[in-house]
Amino acid sequence: MTTASLDAATRVHNFCAGPCTLPVSILEEVRDELLNFDGIGMSLLEDSHRAPAYDAVHTAAMADFRSLAGVPDDFAVLFLQGGATLQFAQVPMNLLADGETASHLNTGAWGKKALSDGRRVADLHEAWTGADEGFARMPSVDELDIAAGSRYLHVTTNETIGGIRLPAYPDVDLPMVGDMSSDFLSRPIDWGRFDLVYGGVQKNLAPAGMAVVVVKRELLGRSGRDLPSALDYAVQDANDSLANTPPMFSIWVMGKVLKWMIADGGLGEFERRAAERAALLYGAIDSSDGWYLSPVDEASRSHMNIVFRLPDEDLEKRFVAEATDAGMVNLKGHRSVGGIRASVYNAMALGSVETLVSFMADFRTAND
Amino acid sequence: MTTASLDAATRVHNFCAGPCTLPVSILEEVRDELLNFDGIGMSLLEDSHRAPAYDAVHTAAMADFRSLAGVPDDFAVLFLQGGATLQFAQVPMNLLADGETASHLNTGAWGKKALSDGRRVADLHEAWTGADEGFARMPSVDELDIAAGSRYLHVTTNETIGGIRLPAYPDVDLPMVGDMSSDFLSRPIDWGRFDLVYGGVQKNLAPAGMAVVVVKRELLGRSGRDLPSALDYAVQDANDSLANTPPMFSIWVMGKVLKWMIADGGLGEFERRAAERAALLYGAIDSSDGWYLSPVDEASRSHMNIVFRLPDEDLEKRFVAEATDAGMVNLKGHRSVGGIRASVYNAMALGSVETLVSFMADFRTAND
Repeated sequence: MTTASLDAATRVHNFCAGPCTLPVSILEEVRDELLNFDGIGMSLLEDSHRAPAYDAVHTAAMADFRSLAGVPDDFAVLFLQGGATLQFAQVPMNLLADGETASHLNTGAWGKKALSDGRRVADLHEAWTGADEGFARMPSVDELDIAAGSRYLHVTTNETIGGIRLPAYPDVDLPMVGDMSSDFLSRPIDWGRFDLVYGGVQKNLAPAGMAVVVVKRELLGRSGRDLPSALDYAVQDANDSLANTPPMFSIWVMGKVLKWMIADGGLGEFERRAAERAALLYGAIDSSDGWYLSPVDEASRSHMNIVFRLPDEDLEKRFVAEATDAGMVNLKGHRSVGGIRASVYNAMALGSVETLVSFMADFRTAND
Repeated sequence: MTTASLDAATRVHNFCAGPCTLPVSILEEVRDELLNFDGIGMSLLEDSHRAPAYDAVHTAAMADFRSLAGVPDDFAVLFLQGGATLQFAQVPMNLLADGETASHLNTGAWGKKALSDGRRVADLHEAWTGADEGFARMPSVDELDIAAGSRYLHVTTNETIGGIRLPAYPDVDLPMVGDMSSDFLSRPIDWGRFDLVYGGVQKNLAPAGMAVVVVKRELLGRSGRDLPSALDYAVQDANDSLANTPPMFSIWVMGKVLKWMIADGGLGEFERRAAERAALLYGAIDSSDGWYLSPVDEASRSHMNIVFRLPDEDLEKRFVAEATDAGMVNLKGHRSVGGIRASVYNAMALGSVETLVSFMADFRTAND
């Protein structure tokens, strides 16, 4: 293959739920720096993670994450391997002492998995489940059954598969732990409400291979468990997430994404862009006289993963196939729920959404 | 920055202990494919890990690892996040039931850490320690004190910091578990002797962010522990290491390295090259009338990490500084032991070693 330049003619519109589209300008930077980073005569990926070149990248990524997300000084920012899936277990290992409990919202595929994996570590309580309603909405506070003595309430702020999100953080009187994987840094975070926030980076922030965990420092070590170093937040915090070799590539690229987000206006601006993209798509659905149908409660509609149905499954198959031919890819809904899913993360250009909305109108006209 | 082409004038000789030098041809391929992989109109890193493009990369990397390393059919090959450090805990979680034990060789910094982290999971026995001798050698079999009932003997086949290796696998009558991080796939593996082999990929195989674990399938689930999915080998094996989003970049690049190693002649050839590089360096040390000094037992000398001392620390500092000026970087010994360390992994060209050996001769002449 030869060096590919991506003009508008070859670049697809990628609606993948994760991994996901990244800014082309950042991919180009990575390409251009890949063999000789900042004049060191080798790839950054070949250099020591304790050498000056990588140290500068690592330190800047931490500082920029902190700055962009407005992380208070009393929280640690950790770059950890294992994705959000490992956090389902690692969070209770670090935050709950033997015999302690926490309450969980079971709001969909990911909330359910956080609960089932976490239960292998601690006695966790299901404070609410959306299973009976097909996980089509988030609960209101007065529906929650929070177990007495719960150290925290675990919430999944956005359910990637079901296509719902918490429109606001529930007003409960205990600290929250938030799995923000699929809407990470797409809106401001109210740190006063959280003991810990975590998310895989492979949707809004970077190539797959890492989770970012932000945890209140006073909680480090509080579980009293004798954890292996790789699973102990305190060890990674004391070593600035360099206790062992970090996932350097993900951190390097994430650093570029964070700088891009800061330059483009920060979380308020990305929240606005997400709302704009979502409004365009839900508008197209809602104005189709029910031909396109959103299966989720309106107040809980995700701004990241817009799921919808067509009149039948054959039409859905053709929709995906014809969209693919027209350069819009990864629109098939998750295999567990079917339908269509358009994932529109931070780096998704409004123009791509406009292209999809226009295609939706044409497809309906041709098939109604 | 502009696209950097790396001619001989700009490319350094990188003796880093890890991460480490990669074949330039592979970095060039990654660069050229980064924005538009195989005509899909986006980066492989943006596409779904369940889409055909990535699936082909993933499947080929698994098959090529199996083929190159000669992994028998009754072993599972797993691509896992968390590095070898997480394996220090994950191995006993998966292989030892409550109350069971295993014996460990404490042969240096990594053997020691495998033992201390593993002890947070199971009751492990130290069968030998090299601490009293400064970890300057590997033990012989008759020195080992293996605990009765041990399920396995854990060995670190190469100690990256101390610069020693097991010249042959110890002839013990129980299965072994091998941390091969720093000599992974640099010599053939006698699978009949191992229950499990693991290693971080960031030395011989790929950019940092992953470990490969090869484990006998009949042992999966045998610990009887109710493990979180991210820590359960059986879950990852059942899902071909796609239970959650894998570290796609590391796997993509590793796939290229594996194909390169197969094309270049396989493990026998890489063992020969390693021996050739090591002979050249130890030859330069041994023929220096003690000016350069290897602090380790001759029979235990590593073929990957060649450590040596100079007459005093000032000379060592100047050696590192002048070597760096001459384009040979990352030669400083680990901060815990000092001295010089030349790490010469699979992708290290013989020419780079010749350059170093020539520099060593000149430096001695100038400073003797």
